[in-house]
Amino acid sequence: MLKPVAHTYRLLLTAVALLLSSVLFAEDGYQLWLRYSKTDNPVLLQQYTQLFSNIYVQGNNATSKVIRDELTLAVKGITGKEPVFVTSTAKAQLVIQLTTESLGDEGFRITSNTASKTVTVLANNHVGMLYGTFHLLRLAQTQQNLSQLNVTSKPAVQLRILNHWDNLNRYVERGYAGISIFNWHTLPGYIDQRYIDYARANASIGINGTVLTNVNANAWVLTAPYLQKVKALADVFRPYGIKVYLTARFSAPIEIGRLKTADPLDPQVQQWWKDKAREIYTLIPDFGGFLVKANSEGQPGPQDYHRSHADGANMLAAAVVPYKGIIMWRAFVYSHETPEDRFKQAYNEFQPLDGKFSSNVLVQVKNGPIDFQPREPFSPLFGAMPKTPLMMEFQLTQEYLGQGTHLVYEAPLFKEVLQSDTYANDKGSFVQKVIDGSLNNHTLSGIAGVANIGNDINWCGHPFAQANWYALGRMAWNSSLSAEEIAEEWIRQTFGHDAQLVATCKQLMLASHETMVNYMTPLGLHHIMGNGHHYGPLPWGNTLPRADWNPVYYHRADSFGIGFNRTATGSNALAQYQPAVQQQWQDSNTCNLRYLLWFHHVSWYHKMPTGNTLWQQLCNSYNTGVAGVAAMQQQWNTLHNKIDIQRFKQVQQLLQIQYNEAVWWRDACLLYFQTFSKQPIPNEYQQPAHTLHYYQGLHFPYAPGNGQ
Amino acid sequence: MLKPVAHTYRLLLTAVALLLSSVLFAEDGYQLWLRYSKTDNPVLLQQYTQLFSNIYVQGNNATSKVIRDELTLAVKGITGKEPVFVTSTAKAQLVIQLTTESLGDEGFRITSNTASKTVTVLANNHVGMLYGTFHLLRLAQTQQNLSQLNVTSKPAVQLRILNHWDNLNRYVERGYAGISIFNWHTLPGYIDQRYIDYARANASIGINGTVLTNVNANAWVLTAPYLQKVKALADVFRPYGIKVYLTARFSAPIEIGRLKTADPLDPQVQQWWKDKAREIYTLIPDFGGFLVKANSEGQPGPQDYHRSHADGANMLAAAVVPYKGIIMWRAFVYSHETPEDRFKQAYNEFQPLDGKFSSNVLVQVKNGPIDFQPREPFSPLFGAMPKTPLMMEFQLTQEYLGQGTHLVYEAPLFKEVLQSDTYANDKGSFVQKVIDGSLNNHTLSGIAGVANIGNDINWCGHPFAQANWYALGRMAWNSSLSAEEIAEEWIRQTFGHDAQLVATCKQLMLASHETMVNYMTPLGLHHIMGNGHHYGPLPWGNTLPRADWNPVYYHRADSFGIGFNRTATGSNALAQYQPAVQQQWQDSNTCNLRYLLWFHHVSWYHKMPTGNTLWQQLCNSYNTGVAGVAAMQQQWNTLHNKIDIQRFKQVQQLLQIQYNEAVWWRDACLLYFQTFSKQPIPNEYQQPAHTLHYYQGLHFPYAPGNGQ
Repeated sequence: MLKPVAHTYRLLLTAVALLLSSVLFAEDGYQLWLRYSKTDNPVLLQQYTQLFSNIYVQGNNATSKVIRDELTLAVKGITGKEPVFVTSTAKAQLVIQLTTESLGDEGFRITSNTASKTVTVLANNHVGMLYGTFHLLRLAQTQQNLSQLNVTSKPAVQLRILNHWDNLNRYVERGYAGISIFNWHTLPGYIDQRYIDYARANASIGINGTVLTNVNANAWVLTAPYLQKVKALADVFRPYGIKVYLTARFSAPIEIGRLKTADPLDPQVQQWWKDKAREIYTLIPDFGGFLVKANSEGQPGPQDYHRSHADGANMLAAAVVPYKGIIMWRAFVYSHETPEDRFKQAYNEFQPLDGKFSSNVLVQVKNGPIDFQPREPFSPLFGAMPKTPLMMEFQLTQEYLGQGTHLVYEAPLFKEVLQSDTYANDKGSFVQKVIDGSLNNHTLSGIAGVANIGNDINWCGHPFAQANWYALGRMAWNSSLSAEEIAEEWIRQTFGHDAQLVATCKQLMLASHETMVNYMTPLGLHHIMGNGHHYGPLPWGNTLPRADWNPVYYHRADSFGIGFNRTATGSNALAQYQPAVQQQWQDSNTCNLRYLLWFHHVSWYHKMPTGNTLWQQLCNSYNTGVAGVAAMQQQWNTLHNKIDIQRFKQVQQLLQIQYNEAVWWRDACLLYFQTFSKQPIPNEYQQPAHTLHYYQGLHFPYAPGNGQ
Repeated sequence: MLKPVAHTYRLLLTAVALLLSSVLFAEDGYQLWLRYSKTDNPVLLQQYTQLFSNIYVQGNNATSKVIRDELTLAVKGITGKEPVFVTSTAKAQLVIQLTTESLGDEGFRITSNTASKTVTVLANNHVGMLYGTFHLLRLAQTQQNLSQLNVTSKPAVQLRILNHWDNLNRYVERGYAGISIFNWHTLPGYIDQRYIDYARANASIGINGTVLTNVNANAWVLTAPYLQKVKALADVFRPYGIKVYLTARFSAPIEIGRLKTADPLDPQVQQWWKDKAREIYTLIPDFGGFLVKANSEGQPGPQDYHRSHADGANMLAAAVVPYKGIIMWRAFVYSHETPEDRFKQAYNEFQPLDGKFSSNVLVQVKNGPIDFQPREPFSPLFGAMPKTPLMMEFQLTQEYLGQGTHLVYEAPLFKEVLQSDTYANDKGSFVQKVIDGSLNNHTLSGIAGVANIGNDINWCGHPFAQANWYALGRMAWNSSLSAEEIAEEWIRQTFGHDAQLVATCKQLMLASHETMVNYMTPLGLHHIMGNGHHYGPLPWGNTLPRADWNPVYYHRADSFGIGFNRTATGSNALAQYQPAVQQQWQDSNTCNLRYLLWFHHVSWYHKMPTGNTLWQQLCNSYNTGVAGVAAMQQQWNTLHNKIDIQRFKQVQQLLQIQYNEAVWWRDACLLYFQTFSKQPIPNEYQQPAHTLHYYQGLHFPYAPGNGQ
């Protein structure tokens, strides 16, 4: 009698688990991609159950404990059974241990032994063991066969970092998912479970650093009471291989140090930063270093004292170098006074400084020359500073990409940038190679993502926004992964394994970036969003005090045409690129339509390769974008009953908002540009429901993310 | 063979459910007191399983659907089985239906039929059915026998309302649990699951109204796009019997109406509000009305036009009266110019207006004369305005009660106020009778609680803060419930039924308010907290521009003694009470020590009934408070393994913060008051770890809740 009963028990167990997980415990998204749901494939379930039954994890330090905790949680979820941790490799099906074989600081090797049906995870240190464990768990969560594994993995990029634009009062600049998860007021006494789960999530995708505070920095975080709070977070994150970094407000020596100057060449200032570094490293021996925004958008910096960015960066670098700390110095600068095309300013300021930075400084460059627009050409700095490690800055939070309510999967954008060829060392000098250090043999390398994380239950607001956090980590670790592969991993872990579900979500995600570009800024339009909060279309915007804050500065629409002439007859920003790149973009007849209005002022009657005039093409693109959202809605609706009702409805409602806002972008932009083109919107397209005057009268004083 | 197997199955099922709920799904507190955990008493489980197997719920409107949805969720949780909803009462064990028997708008009757083992819930309308259902579910969740029920229940108070001090940008004034749950930016398109769960939680404790916006009001919420957002929330809340209210900024006709005045006697102003009311009621036919803070702390009001509070309230009352709307006009006013004791000002302004308010106006009065201090005497307005319905305003958010990190159960405070005797109509004229309308035969009656709700996963930040929300609703419905009974209900639903767990939590909760009074403001001290954010002790505070914003104004410590003389030889605020009340408090030798320094300036050498001098008693009280927190910590630690680890650790950490802050309050206050008393802190007590100078040097620029 025993066997059939046991079998029935197992079925019952599964049924109960499914019932409980699907009904009582609605899917609120808190668990991210670490849901560890029960394996529904019976063959794999058996394999996983056997493999994860007896596990050997070497060591008894904090990271070993973290590995065992994660396995306990994961194995219970995936197999329904508790794993047993054994103290000898002989008794284990799964062995996770150290090796002397060279795998690098963070790398690992996973091999299956077909005969013994065991799996071994090897690494040179415990953090490598943790990364290997998360890799194995990802394979199980994506329901892969674990009996034939032979994987060696090392990170492509050394520093894989989140930048939190979080203020000390928990306000998140450009945050659309609630307020900061870092509750400074209750630190260090209260350690929120969220800090631990944040570390787990990051470690699972290889993120190994976090800048806790906003680039528009507040010196107060460098005071003694706050450093105790930072230490508490560092202590939580350390076992997960995550270092903490802070932003350094350049004027801190004045604001909290009682000095009269912050001049980087002043010995007292230098000593102040050295003392501050010693104070920090005494508390946090593995403190990562500083991220600095200086002389940009009103932030203080070395230029206030007629010193260069290199002078500023090197002064801070000297303070942290005894402790192996680094400085990430942002290239996002544009001068208050210079009338020069803003596109050109970062290059103009930084390219001449190549070779002048200390060896523990990275220059952190936004992916494009302006500011995280829906689509930008790659920044001309990539490839132009061979003696300096350049770090990539992507923006996960969707400041210009529909903010909290649009489904935009960013991996295609990331890949597009990284796969761009700078031609710096001839053909094949991809941005990826600049960033991972291989182009110019830098050992320091890094990718940063401006975090899209807040205290919303599901961390990121939009359920699909989690995929952008996920993609950043995965891509920074493994640059050979495609946007599609990353999407599939994420979908399977986040929603499930149903074939139609996976295919539909993938289709929807992969098309989403292009769709968004079409309904917001097609053909190379850029920076035509609302003032301040950056919400919604404002192509007519011309009221801000600085020319280069205004949309009209960027699109330059007039009775002749539209677009910013950045060729030799215009601002000549194009000259900042290598000749081979210039050649791609310098002729308005051959320039990829993606970048056309980035570089050319084009007649409304200009004939496109499609046969359309520019005006017709603009109308076509905006409508293609809107149609793309309608298609996403249809696709999503087919997933009813394939996804828990809570997340299904959540995305369904958000897609409707996205559709309404796509229509708003299209109609507001076309009506406005029509005042220049003097041509009708072709009859084949839906005509605007309101007048231009209506759209110009909309105001959103409480749109999120912009100061209070 | 069948029976033993079925029995084993049942055990297994329970085991699996427990395992899953305790381990995989950590208790994050989101479910509040509606956890619907499996009944662990086998006899009751059988009773509940039978009773909830077949259910008849009359009707097919939105509220009937809500009742069925709640029962589906609850019964699955409590019994592990899905209920069946039958269409005839004959087939049902549980019948929930309408009756013509008079039970009032919201009341219900629940009776068990012992013979048929059925239960019937009767009400005059569907909301009454919903309240009855939640009552029955509470009985099941507290594991009571349902076979002998005979309950008739009607609310003690008509309006049971939450006041959200939430701004349109989601900042919560005096909020310590994240930002507002109301995401105005994504409304009306996105309906957060949280809105539904908020309605469920409120309905389960009888709360039937919510003021969505801050008393420091913003007129923008009255514009057309925002009213669409308000309508969306009203539509969600309506099936749960919850009406929405808004705050009315008195100057709205100027700010959004383009009028030049907001004078309540101006016909254009009156018409503007009438038009606005019509616009609102067209969208929301059951809109509740307005809450108004006028001519207080800088808010605009009728006095700006030399009109009275009654003129202002009645003008708004006339706008909403055609739709059965009401006005809640706050009595929390104190003049910028008047040098009068702030204690006296609300009474002085409002008492003379008794009888001048329209019949759909309630005057909303804070429980005490100053501002939600740890302990206050009841406001002298209670009992002093017999012709006006007075509404009680309690503060659930712990602005002055340890904010986000102190465990303070407020029901004892609520009961202390409500059970105070005003002697207005002779002995027995309790505040409760003023509030429920019975003392002066008012049909309108109300209790408001300033919400302690934010977007933290567990709603209220501190796990025990949920109990204050719970207590407000329960007490407003049933004034005969004791603080202890409410605590026990809440503990069983929130944590479980273990006898030691229940007893320990109850002990800890019931002592917590007195403990907090002791370590913050013993013996009638009040208003000695930090400026602005109100965090921590600042008894030396004397730098704010208005005398009555400064702590020194309130404690008046000098070389002679300490306390505010409010007797006939002082401000004579005491004269605002009935003679019998004056008699209780007018003699410093017989005045209850709770209120001593509220009414008397007492010598440091004054002999207390305890035999101590005042100074000794002050030292004793502060140390008693600190010892009380230490006792709470010890008690909580005995519950290890009786509570899920996540909430156990959370409370454990918070209690340690509370202990540290209790010590801080004690030491900072005693060191400061010692500069006047010139006496040592008796040796029996722990001596301060720091100097007064140290405590005076602490600054908290980012403490939460005080503007951005």
